[in-house]
Amino acid sequence: MCPIVTPTYKVNVDGHFSACCVCRCFPSLRPFFLRRLVLMAPFLNKRDLQFQLFEVLDTAQLPERPRFAEHSREVYQDVLNVAYNVAEKYFANHARAADVNEPHVVDGKVKLVPEAQQAVEAFRDAGFFSAHHDEELGGLQLPWVVMQAVQANFQAANPGTASYTFLTIGNANLQREFGSPEQQEKYLLPLLEGRWFGTMALSEPQAGSGLADITTTATLRDDGTYSITGTKMWISGGEHELTENIVHLVLARIKGAPAGVKGISLFLVPRYRINPDGSVGESNHVVLAGLNHKLGHRGTTNTLLNFGEGGETIGELVGEPGRGLAQMFHMMNEARIGVGMGAVMSGYAGYLASLEYARDRRQGRHASNRDPQAESVAIIEHADVKRMLLRQKVFVEGGLALGLYAASLVDDLNTGPEEEKADTALLLDLLTPIVKSWPSKYSQEALSDAIQVMGGAGYTRDTPVEMYYRDNRLNPIHEGTEGIQGNDLLGRKLTQANGRGLQVLLGKMGADLKAAEQEGELSDIRTALQEAIGQCAAALGSLLGRAAELGPDLFLANANAALDMVGHTVVGWMWLRQGLAAARALPDARGDDRDFYEGKLHAARFFARYELPKVRTWAELLASADPTTVEMQENWF
Amino acid sequence: MCPIVTPTYKVNVDGHFSACCVCRCFPSLRPFFLRRLVLMAPFLNKRDLQFQLFEVLDTAQLPERPRFAEHSREVYQDVLNVAYNVAEKYFANHARAADVNEPHVVDGKVKLVPEAQQAVEAFRDAGFFSAHHDEELGGLQLPWVVMQAVQANFQAANPGTASYTFLTIGNANLQREFGSPEQQEKYLLPLLEGRWFGTMALSEPQAGSGLADITTTATLRDDGTYSITGTKMWISGGEHELTENIVHLVLARIKGAPAGVKGISLFLVPRYRINPDGSVGESNHVVLAGLNHKLGHRGTTNTLLNFGEGGETIGELVGEPGRGLAQMFHMMNEARIGVGMGAVMSGYAGYLASLEYARDRRQGRHASNRDPQAESVAIIEHADVKRMLLRQKVFVEGGLALGLYAASLVDDLNTGPEEEKADTALLLDLLTPIVKSWPSKYSQEALSDAIQVMGGAGYTRDTPVEMYYRDNRLNPIHEGTEGIQGNDLLGRKLTQANGRGLQVLLGKMGADLKAAEQEGELSDIRTALQEAIGQCAAALGSLLGRAAELGPDLFLANANAALDMVGHTVVGWMWLRQGLAAARALPDARGDDRDFYEGKLHAARFFARYELPKVRTWAELLASADPTTVEMQENWF
Repeated sequence: MCPIVTPTYKVNVDGHFSACCVCRCFPSLRPFFLRRLVLMAPFLNKRDLQFQLFEVLDTAQLPERPRFAEHSREVYQDVLNVAYNVAEKYFANHARAADVNEPHVVDGKVKLVPEAQQAVEAFRDAGFFSAHHDEELGGLQLPWVVMQAVQANFQAANPGTASYTFLTIGNANLQREFGSPEQQEKYLLPLLEGRWFGTMALSEPQAGSGLADITTTATLRDDGTYSITGTKMWISGGEHELTENIVHLVLARIKGAPAGVKGISLFLVPRYRINPDGSVGESNHVVLAGLNHKLGHRGTTNTLLNFGEGGETIGELVGEPGRGLAQMFHMMNEARIGVGMGAVMSGYAGYLASLEYARDRRQGRHASNRDPQAESVAIIEHADVKRMLLRQKVFVEGGLALGLYAASLVDDLNTGPEEEKADTALLLDLLTPIVKSWPSKYSQEALSDAIQVMGGAGYTRDTPVEMYYRDNRLNPIHEGTEGIQGNDLLGRKLTQANGRGLQVLLGKMGADLKAAEQEGELSDIRTALQEAIGQCAAALGSLLGRAAELGPDLFLANANAALDMVGHTVVGWMWLRQGLAAARALPDARGDDRDFYEGKLHAARFFARYELPKVRTWAELLASADPTTVEMQENWF
Repeated sequence: MCPIVTPTYKVNVDGHFSACCVCRCFPSLRPFFLRRLVLMAPFLNKRDLQFQLFEVLDTAQLPERPRFAEHSREVYQDVLNVAYNVAEKYFANHARAADVNEPHVVDGKVKLVPEAQQAVEAFRDAGFFSAHHDEELGGLQLPWVVMQAVQANFQAANPGTASYTFLTIGNANLQREFGSPEQQEKYLLPLLEGRWFGTMALSEPQAGSGLADITTTATLRDDGTYSITGTKMWISGGEHELTENIVHLVLARIKGAPAGVKGISLFLVPRYRINPDGSVGESNHVVLAGLNHKLGHRGTTNTLLNFGEGGETIGELVGEPGRGLAQMFHMMNEARIGVGMGAVMSGYAGYLASLEYARDRRQGRHASNRDPQAESVAIIEHADVKRMLLRQKVFVEGGLALGLYAASLVDDLNTGPEEEKADTALLLDLLTPIVKSWPSKYSQEALSDAIQVMGGAGYTRDTPVEMYYRDNRLNPIHEGTEGIQGNDLLGRKLTQANGRGLQVLLGKMGADLKAAEQEGELSDIRTALQEAIGQCAAALGSLLGRAAELGPDLFLANANAALDMVGHTVVGWMWLRQGLAAARALPDARGDDRDFYEGKLHAARFFARYELPKVRTWAELLASADPTTVEMQENWF
């Protein structure tokens, strides 16, 4: 047993920590290493989560709605405490072990670290698989914003293991929406009970972003089911032994269906066939053809799956033929908010780790102190370290505010006032590409800063930030790449319903700006946001006005700048909202609370002064409909 | 023997490739995997290297200087061809194997992949350890700019293994400058012959960036040598069996020396003591206390070393006592150019890999093509992919131009016209923090784009870009962090000699702007650069004018913005210079050359339109002397 790794990586004593020859070869290690290894930062700021839910958002008022009538703020807090405790005890404990010992095949079966099994069972025992579902399905009818906050705990503690549970929840949500009663009885209930897990099987080797070109084929069988043949790629959770069955939701083309997206249907395809009594039967010939080995997110199996290899794979059609992609996209808002929140939480965990390090590590003196005899200071006192910590703070706390705001819109859509639903739907549609891509991108910048704050230590695998950095790099890629989100925002969401979504957004931002007028502390963020909104609106107006003249290729050429421009503006708004809540609470606050609110106000100032001014550059590029990328010739590279 | 890994990872067939269970478990892999695994992009663009040396820089004119009289352009090209061939055959071959099988301790000795041994021997046999040294030392008297271009080949092919050679070259350069004739005979010659290797041992566990606080102690012995005790941290190449001895250059404090940097001296400390006949003797008690396990750059051992453990460690003082840090800094320009060039080359290799992938991978259609029956296009045809490739191109080719320009200034300093040397020294000093930090930062952005272009494939370890991404993340940390470079630029280099360095820079840029006036193709980059220079100069003028009023802490608070602002402007100038060379060559160019020059001109346009406009935001922040970071309180985080 290695004495030094115990405090940080509890599981290592079981022999999982195979990569560190420091501990294998040098049992009498220096105290320096000891200090570094025991550095174990909290993975989540519970105070901030409370602030976002109950001070910025009006989550505490949700019980006024009939569906949540039996809830209260205390109920939500208790649920979140359970989530934190389960996440800490069963997920955070093996984040590094799962990274070092990634899934591999032993005797034809995918082997994970054993703690993963305990983790998903603890998640199941806490009832989180069904917590947001109807009472009649065993659920608590939790609002989605609370459910998202629950999930945030697991995403922060261990995104790799948490993925199995979230994929299952997403699969179940889709079944709940589109599955027939018989299908729900057969496939959904075991998922809600956490007995089986689920996946989404969309991509194929030749069709990743281009789903219109999938070729997996479904052939009608005599009994009304379908025979599925083809290969699916990048399927997370596609194979494991965590549960006795896996239910794949598979996009495939019914034989003879038209080309393109209109020929795609959705199928329920279990790994093992299901006996009439609901028990698990023989193989359904969904065969693991390979595991992908990734930069990060290593705890999650990512698979190449063959359907119909060595026997028939039987699936059931969900809903109408040809509606597969539309059904998938119906659940896309929630799925993409989930990815964005995952990015936020990886960034947040890195921020907290580097913050703890910066308070502890002493190095150098202030530039104004030239006395070599003076004691060195904690690096948090250096302006450039504060800059990197503030950058992290505004990116991850701004991202958290955004993700939870979007989740609250899902609740409004489901349970809010009827007359507002159309606008809410458009606003949520508009924000979704930003909620997905902005934190994916800026959490990566935050994590790079976390490494930089920690210097050489941050670059080693003895501290956790390099792992978060590898984990989060996935988020701009999966669930629709950044390029796809940009096209979605500029090519669809900003124009649909005659631009009504943008009008709703501008209206909401305007109302908060008005509300903030009385707060002197908010003058920087108010002014900067007002300017950014003006630049944004002008650029979009100019570009949209020339859409016909430009044609689709040129119109979309700088969609990436639109994502940044609108994204920064929206997160600026999130900082205004947080600042507003802090400014109102500050006068009566004492002690730690006072510091917390002062921190929020100062972070809002930082975002106003360091980040929002960037909007102008993106706006100018967009307004100019710059053709540089379109004009670039392939053979000039 | 695994059939699929042969083409890409030649060494894997020897059993080194231990992480991939795809190939271990699934011998009959899908053609898809095959196609991905054989993807082996060139690691270097030889055409661009020629362009930079002989069309942008006047390297071909260097033989007019006496020291290089026996050279010619053909000599330089032959040397570079040898470098490329050695790099390809002996370094690129095991880049991934060295990453997967990182250095570890077996029976008390550090074990590397065996190809590393063959690589450094091939490097030695080609004569590169002494190539830039005097003929009397067995050298070719190569100019430093050619030497840097030679090294670029190895940095691109395999930065981990290449580090051993560069550390040795740096150590030898320092010895050549400050070692006594006896010391050079004893320690330097074996390094030039490649028989022994060298390190730089500066940092300590409690003193990384804060070198003023090192505590390693040197005690005078009766024979005039010193007894060295203490612990050094982050020592690259600090232990290995590649050579029969290792010569450490160690910073230590002679007993009784004053606190701070003035008490630091430099010592030659061999791993094994040296017998009177120059042969390797008994242990000098420099003991490996631990290996660091890093995010990337895994081929290079990175060590914690104890001096004086289990016996006496004897070292020799280099030069005068108390001059240790000054001597180190004398070689800092070259060392930091080397780090910047390493960053450039990692980014460049990633760019080339993603470019090849983008030409090959077909996915989706143009936004203007709504026909689902239409064939999908190579992703290089999508505007957003071109954007990511152009971004990579301007970052890595701009960085290459900058690194080689700085190397050419080293030559000017050594062999250029006497009357220009004072200005050249100031210009080189000014540019060094930018040459070190700008490519370190922007190659990382380029590599993130390389991953993004390749999508899921880029996120796997089957393709090389994730490795470059991990490798390069080191560069903003070592050899002076980004924070240190910012303070160096703003707090020292921009002000020294009454700002003469900046005047020299502005003069050079002005001359090139004037020369570019006749070239219509350059109007975008000319205008944008002119604006950026104006913003830069105004911001610096305003800030420097208030320096006394602000005090050092506030004056330096936004040093990071200065690094970006001056960095982007300087790289804009590098794009003007490249554009100028391309515009002049284009009229007579045919075929591939024509495309090459068109690509340079279009990349210059891209830099002008997408990157240079960012300068304004940094300039405004800097001019405002924004106090947000300084005002942030530790307890507000």
